[in-house]
Amino acid sequence: MGQIPRFLSWRNMLVLSLAINFSLILKILKGDRERGDSWDRTAYVSIWPVVSTTASESSSLSSASCNYSKIEEDDDRIINLKFGDPTVYERYWQENGEVTTMVIPGWQSLSYFSDENNLCWFLEPELAKEIVRVHKVVGNAVTQDRFIVVGTGSTQLYQAALYALSPHDDSGPINVVSATPYYSTYPLITDCLKSGLYRWGGDAKTYKEDGPYIELVTSPNNPDGFLRESVVNSTEGILIHDLAYYWPQYTPITSPADHDVMLFTASKSTGHAGIRIGWALVKDRETARKMIEYIELNTIGVSKDSQLRVAKVLKVVSDSCGNVTGKSFFDHSYDAMYERWKLLKQAAKDTKRFSVPDFVSQRCNFFGRVFEPQPAFAWFKCEEGIVDCEKFLREEKKILTKSGKYFGDELSNVRISMLDRDTNFNIFLHRITSSFNSTL
Amino acid sequence: MGQIPRFLSWRNMLVLSLAINFSLILKILKGDRERGDSWDRTAYVSIWPVVSTTASESSSLSSASCNYSKIEEDDDRIINLKFGDPTVYERYWQENGEVTTMVIPGWQSLSYFSDENNLCWFLEPELAKEIVRVHKVVGNAVTQDRFIVVGTGSTQLYQAALYALSPHDDSGPINVVSATPYYSTYPLITDCLKSGLYRWGGDAKTYKEDGPYIELVTSPNNPDGFLRESVVNSTEGILIHDLAYYWPQYTPITSPADHDVMLFTASKSTGHAGIRIGWALVKDRETARKMIEYIELNTIGVSKDSQLRVAKVLKVVSDSCGNVTGKSFFDHSYDAMYERWKLLKQAAKDTKRFSVPDFVSQRCNFFGRVFEPQPAFAWFKCEEGIVDCEKFLREEKKILTKSGKYFGDELSNVRISMLDRDTNFNIFLHRITSSFNSTL
Ligand SMILES: Cc1ncc(COP(=O)(O)O)c(C=O)c1O
Ligand SMILES: Cc1ncc(COP(=O)(O)O)c(C=O)c1O
Repeated sequence: MGQIPRFLSWRNMLVLSLAINFSLILKILKGDRERGDSWDRTAYVSIWPVVSTTASESSSLSSASCNYSKIEEDDDRIINLKFGDPTVYERYWQENGEVTTMVIPGWQSLSYFSDENNLCWFLEPELAKEIVRVHKVVGNAVTQDRFIVVGTGSTQLYQAALYALSPHDDSGPINVVSATPYYSTYPLITDCLKSGLYRWGGDAKTYKEDGPYIELVTSPNNPDGFLRESVVNSTEGILIHDLAYYWPQYTPITSPADHDVMLFTASKSTGHAGIRIGWALVKDRETARKMIEYIELNTIGVSKDSQLRVAKVLKVVSDSCGNVTGKSFFDHSYDAMYERWKLLKQAAKDTKRFSVPDFVSQRCNFFGRVFEPQPAFAWFKCEEGIVDCEKFLREEKKILTKSGKYFGDELSNVRISMLDRDTNFNIFLHRITSSFNSTL
Repeated sequence: MGQIPRFLSWRNMLVLSLAINFSLILKILKGDRERGDSWDRTAYVSIWPVVSTTASESSSLSSASCNYSKIEEDDDRIINLKFGDPTVYERYWQENGEVTTMVIPGWQSLSYFSDENNLCWFLEPELAKEIVRVHKVVGNAVTQDRFIVVGTGSTQLYQAALYALSPHDDSGPINVVSATPYYSTYPLITDCLKSGLYRWGGDAKTYKEDGPYIELVTSPNNPDGFLRESVVNSTEGILIHDLAYYWPQYTPITSPADHDVMLFTASKSTGHAGIRIGWALVKDRETARKMIEYIELNTIGVSKDSQLRVAKVLKVVSDSCGNVTGKSFFDHSYDAMYERWKLLKQAAKDTKRFSVPDFVSQRCNFFGRVFEPQPAFAWFKCEEGIVDCEKFLREEKKILTKSGKYFGDELSNVRISMLDRDTNFNIFLHRITSSFNSTL
């Protein structure tokens, strides 16, 4: 017993020493930013927010180009907005993320098992707790009486859901459908192994076959940002809801989602795509059990380190929402998306050479105010005779985007990431406005 | 320029402060161990090594039971040796792992991309470097002119290899075979999605079909520990070598493995199964490209945090091998396996109620001495009329093992993990020796 005070004091010193680390890291980061320099170039190229909200709309646009004197020199640089790489969030986590720093000792993560008493034996209890908490704080999904299944990104969970929901008898592959424009990766994943359990069935809007089928509902939708419901009019449909973007920085949270199988991901909620963590909220025990079985066969569970990191990130996000004095994570990310969409919509109005979707405002229960969706992607349409929008942007503007054809839609549409770093977003904006006419 | 010294001094202070952290963590861990107490029970249940090597064989056995006075009270506890959970390594990483501690800042791992210039765009360069280094240090695989593909465990890489090596035309599924006894998960993974690309073709020893096929060679083999080569006598075979256990704690390293597709994993080399990292060394660029394509579709890459952790662990392992004064990681783990196998073989000899395989000694280039394989699993055969060994051990000894039938072999065999914590291994040893006769 006599040793306990000594032992506690070592512990205390460690806490103190860790606190010194964090403040030093913060100091160094701040020092870098103040000098406009960086010791990790890739991590520090973004500037947040893009331009001041108080500037008038048209001057915002020009100030975007003014602020970045490099834009002119960078005319030859290819800007890749093809993927939804969520680097827009880097700045927030650099500035506010020191409490999110994790220390992982060398002996962590030896066992395959996280929680042998849980149906999902590879789910870290801490992550489960923070998933429930963040959904409660945001009010975007019902978690009560749901099974949580963790996955290596929601991409793996989509496959786990297909495995769980397909009949395993000899009735042949079940059709998997989604309304166009749909997330371009779905058909590729679905058909890549020529599974006898399921196969891609195409556009849900024109689907007419009898019998059971799986319908994927992505809401808000990738690529176009609209809220969605199932469209096939049949009682035999089995639904998977991909709610990757049902977070208040992208869309008003009108009610807690309450579906049989709901997929979420850290990639689009907090922006930590490189950690590769997604989660499913599942009503039916047997469905959850089969999803877990798939993940066991596919990757023998999910990285513990990654789960613990996401648990910490979600905790910081939830904590920030209860912080009445400062801006929450969602305040920050909402503002960033708001800025970008304001600039993009203004550019569309000014140039008239392209359009973006019109959205309806709704009241968001989380923010307690009314606003329009401001999606993670812009579903961008070239107007006035440009048939192949992807080709035009690539060849004339050196901007890489994803053609509408991959989403089961037209060539005149492209999908453009709104989640890239500020510098890239601003060069993109500059290129599609200042010289749109000249290169037509 | 005037700010640089100030900036550097912050950096220096951080390094100093981190060093203080590590020594404090070490101090606390040591303090815990000295008191025989633990602040993380699950992580501290093992004791290493089991018993002293200097004790005579038979007294070792009894000392194993003597040292653990709890064994008698624990007669009712079920001991699960069904899986290859590598918790035997916990003790080493607790005692020597403080340099392996990782600090991950909150803004790490936002982007999906690790290295856009690499064919394997999701491979962390630091991990690639340490993989090459550890193979060079150990001498167990050729890495020159190979593509490295990282996976969420080698389990995912096995599937990536199947995807890459199967014909994607309409020739129908290719047969995948392996000689019995084979790793029980292979057939389950291969057939779980009823793929049109590949299907399980059974025992390679009796395989007679014409045309291309894939043969899996696991060497050392799971479950029986023998070194293996391909057995189907045909020129149309495509080989995958699973070398999960080709490390010097398990088997003499006779030469660097040099095959077309070689799979390795952190789970069995360093024991970090919960991090879920494996790697493939691949000769052919197109095969590597298709493996990468599969991992992109399956999980959009592999957790960065996990990769960086394994990079650090491998670095510590390689460093320990160059340390002439202390014991290396492989010295430690070799000793642990040696002890366990010595005790198990002695028990087999003493009781005559079960047998384990006889292995041939070979010279190990890494250790520079001759020894017998001491595999991660014991391929355990019940003798004298026990038909169903798994049932016998479960019902009479409360020891869970995996029946030979799952490996395409006989019920009189079971696979027993040799990688569990010491307490469990010792209870197992105690139960199969001291009262083997009485319960027959
Ligand atoms: C609708 C949708 N679902 C899932 C994903 C994949 O997310 P994860 O990174 O969790 O695999 C994306 C990524 O772009 C997406 O847009
Ligand atoms: C031969 C063999 N290959 C692969 C694996 C799976 O390893 P990982 O944890 O890397 O997925 C195992 C695990 O037991 C194994 O025995």
